[in-house]
Amino acid sequence: MTETMSAAREAREAMRAGKWTGLTTYKVPGFVQCNLVVVPRSDAYDFLVYCQRNRAACPVVDVTDPGSPEPRWAAPGADLRTDLPRYRVYKDGEMAAEPTDARPWWPEDGVAFLIGSSLTFDAALERAGVSLPPEVWVLRTTVPTQPAGRFAGSLVVTLRYFTPADAITAVQLTARYPWNHGAPVHIGDPAAIGADIARPIVGVPLKQVPEGKVGVFWACGVTPQQVALEARLPLVITHCPGHAFITDIRSDEFCQP
Amino acid sequence: MTETMSAAREAREAMRAGKWTGLTTYKVPGFVQCNLVVVPRSDAYDFLVYCQRNRAACPVVDVTDPGSPEPRWAAPGADLRTDLPRYRVYKDGEMAAEPTDARPWWPEDGVAFLIGSSLTFDAALERAGVSLPPEVWVLRTTVPTQPAGRFAGSLVVTLRYFTPADAITAVQLTARYPWNHGAPVHIGDPAAIGADIARPIVGVPLKQVPEGKVGVFWACGVTPQQVALEARLPLVITHCPGHAFITDIRSDEFCQP
Repeated sequence: MTETMSAAREAREAMRAGKWTGLTTYKVPGFVQCNLVVVPRSDAYDFLVYCQRNRAACPVVDVTDPGSPEPRWAAPGADLRTDLPRYRVYKDGEMAAEPTDARPWWPEDGVAFLIGSSLTFDAALERAGVSLPPEVWVLRTTVPTQPAGRFAGSLVVTLRYFTPADAITAVQLTARYPWNHGAPVHIGDPAAIGADIARPIVGVPLKQVPEGKVGVFWACGVTPQQVALEARLPLVITHCPGHAFITDIRSDEFCQP
Repeated sequence: MTETMSAAREAREAMRAGKWTGLTTYKVPGFVQCNLVVVPRSDAYDFLVYCQRNRAACPVVDVTDPGSPEPRWAAPGADLRTDLPRYRVYKDGEMAAEPTDARPWWPEDGVAFLIGSSLTFDAALERAGVSLPPEVWVLRTTVPTQPAGRFAGSLVVTLRYFTPADAITAVQLTARYPWNHGAPVHIGDPAAIGADIARPIVGVPLKQVPEGKVGVFWACGVTPQQVALEARLPLVITHCPGHAFITDIRSDEFCQP
């Protein structure tokens, strides 16, 4: 096991031990970070079809066998019930808890979906000399997604802003990470996709994108979470926004499917 | 509707009318071609998980609603029961028919999967000045795939051979088509992946890759077909190898998820 390999494992062990309960944004660079959505087996087919139909927002990196919390491909030996810093538990679409250990809520036949996260490519942007904004905003839009079964809703995006030159680099570079949302879905005016930067889901509200910077918007893995909540399933477990699962997959290796 | 747009539709109409029953290899350039696998709803979840776990071989481009033969995203208005040149119908893993119209066999709750085909990027290779071999070979390998439920088996690949310089161009260029198998999985000696070029699934048997050429191998959408057959499902409908479904999606547009 190489040293960098252990960085992901060490992070997960700290999370499992309850020593790491904070954000993963900009942390453990070089490893694919994933969003988590757990649903009972009975809802798993429609959810997987929803992800397939909206792959820019929901690139599925791994799916567990029903009842198993182990992502055998993305991080063999890991336990998705404990190895994230913080979870959200939703009952009938309402938040019921925000624990650091999901074991008390994990459904017996639960299927866990790991969905690529744009947090993965921030390290690649930094390596390319792109100046990153102080944080990553998560925003609702009015762009519809393709429904599947009871799952339907609008696209959620992440916003980062850059100089125009850096924005062009960011488009080219993130296109190389199709399993982590790939190239952006929009550039420029937030209103054109119905996004309100004054009311983000995650991030400090913005009055405007700073002078001389361009807003760049990527499809976001929070989309399937929102959709799962809006479907008012009896039980959904997700990661807490910004508190992602860190896989053993190197983000550069993962340029390829 | 642009002229090129109608090329895909015209091809499908000719197939629907029984006027086009032959190969689609190197035909209707510029449009995404897809492999077809149809299974009853009861097998669709495990099959979709199998595709997700083996995405290089099984990039899912579209999934129909159970019982509907319309690929609403890939080709709205098309009918997958009639709009391919030739099908294969398998019962309990054995070929039962090779019709040009699948309607008599289509299951009432059938789910159709359209899976990206490497036939899509041949036009891009040609456009880049790459000299294509006279045909595309389909070969079994001994490389295992990741199982899901009753679906398990070995990877099937396509083989094309090129000059070394063209092989390098081909790697770079096909990496841009992740939903059509992306970059190759192997280069060089067929035996290294357990492939026997003297016994292809499709193509004229080869004694050796021609002098001065390099064999380049891509994960192939025949993989999930083989796996569905080996699972001995009561009923599976597929396209006949080399007789793909032609979508409305432009292959260049489709560089992005």
